[in-house]
Amino acid sequence: MRQHQIVLEIATRGTGFVEITRQVDGALAEAGIGQGLVTLFIQHTSASLTIQENADPDVMRDMTNALERLAPRDPSLYRHTTEGPDDMPAHIRSALTDVSLTIPVRDGRLALGTWQGVFVCEHRAQPHRRRVVVHVLGE
Amino acid sequence: MRQHQIVLEIATRGTGFVEITRQVDGALAEAGIGQGLVTLFIQHTSASLTIQENADPDVMRDMTNALERLAPRDPSLYRHTTEGPDDMPAHIRSALTDVSLTIPVRDGRLALGTWQGVFVCEHRAQPHRRRVVVHVLGE
Amino acid sequence: MRQHQIVLEIATRGTGFVEITRQVDGALAEAGIGQGLVTLFIQHTSASLTIQENADPDVMRDMTNALERLAPRDPSLYRHTTEGPDDMPAHIRSALTDVSLTIPVRDGRLALGTWQGVFVCEHRAQPHRRRVVVHVLGE
Repeated sequence: MRQHQIVLEIATRGTGFVEITRQVDGALAEAGIGQGLVTLFIQHTSASLTIQENADPDVMRDMTNALERLAPRDPSLYRHTTEGPDDMPAHIRSALTDVSLTIPVRDGRLALGTWQGVFVCEHRAQPHRRRVVVHVLGE
Repeated sequence: MRQHQIVLEIATRGTGFVEITRQVDGALAEAGIGQGLVTLFIQHTSASLTIQENADPDVMRDMTNALERLAPRDPSLYRHTTEGPDDMPAHIRSALTDVSLTIPVRDGRLALGTWQGVFVCEHRAQPHRRRVVVHVLGE
Repeated sequence: MRQHQIVLEIATRGTGFVEITRQVDGALAEAGIGQGLVTLFIQHTSASLTIQENADPDVMRDMTNALERLAPRDPSLYRHTTEGPDDMPAHIRSALTDVSLTIPVRDGRLALGTWQGVFVCEHRAQPHRRRVVVHVLGE
């Protein structure tokens, strides 16, 4: 049983989704395992992870709008406003999506479905650099 | 440390929840480990996983209605409508629940609480066959 | 590769968040691994887990209010009301947050970001004792 761990630094472009499937595949290839688990963990509370359809970019635009409806950027709703009107909604949107994800490895590949891609969700308005720990375990 | 991996094919009956605890228990029994981790991963973006109360079926009916309020089937809200009015809400409901779950194994059994069951959440209107990867690791 | 497993019993004070980062650090220290994974699993369906900012307590108050807006304690919305008006909303809030979390271990420490803390989310009105399984794997 082997372990391999790297940290990805992902540049976001403000609110929206950045696909990182290729980078996760790269970490898995470096580890060289046939069967096991890939665990992703984002080290932030105003950005998160999700697995979603990567075929039609409208899906991720609609997802951004849905999160805006669920946790609006309306300062009258929040006490925590010192870091800007987009900060508290970003924490809520992070809690509604994922801070960690675990993907099985089969035959040396991520066991993703045909349309699944791994995304970093930037919930702040401005671009940021986000750190994602990729941990590979298996043999 | 041993690994064991299978893929469950779960037939859903349209929007709602299908309990799969028994099938996950079966995969764990095949692996024959005493302590470790069971990781579940669903290979879809319009169906998802959750762990919820399996005692009162009203809980899962109320849950379905709650997801309908959070991500309504209202085409005026979405651009991605080519796959039907239930597709984009299904992606959002999937993002709000779980694509992967990890359950510890203690004394050869899933460490579920008394009332916890594992469910596939079908978010599309029509029945589908859904694939869930079950990965068992431990010794 | 070593495993170590304990169960934390966390006393909550009714609806709100209880930070358990220190207890999870303690379980990791007992296991004495340098690299690996810590998996947390809560054995309940009306309380859950989340990782959030632990610097400003207003964040967790705003989070509680956001969950109240997303899954209101309004009995007219639910059929499952026999366990009290706060029970079904608690199940929904649990489904929207996390039942399991996996955190990588780097250099013998949880790979949390600077502001991240691990919390038990109590969704019921009354105080409860909640069980969280902590599973440490690595070497």
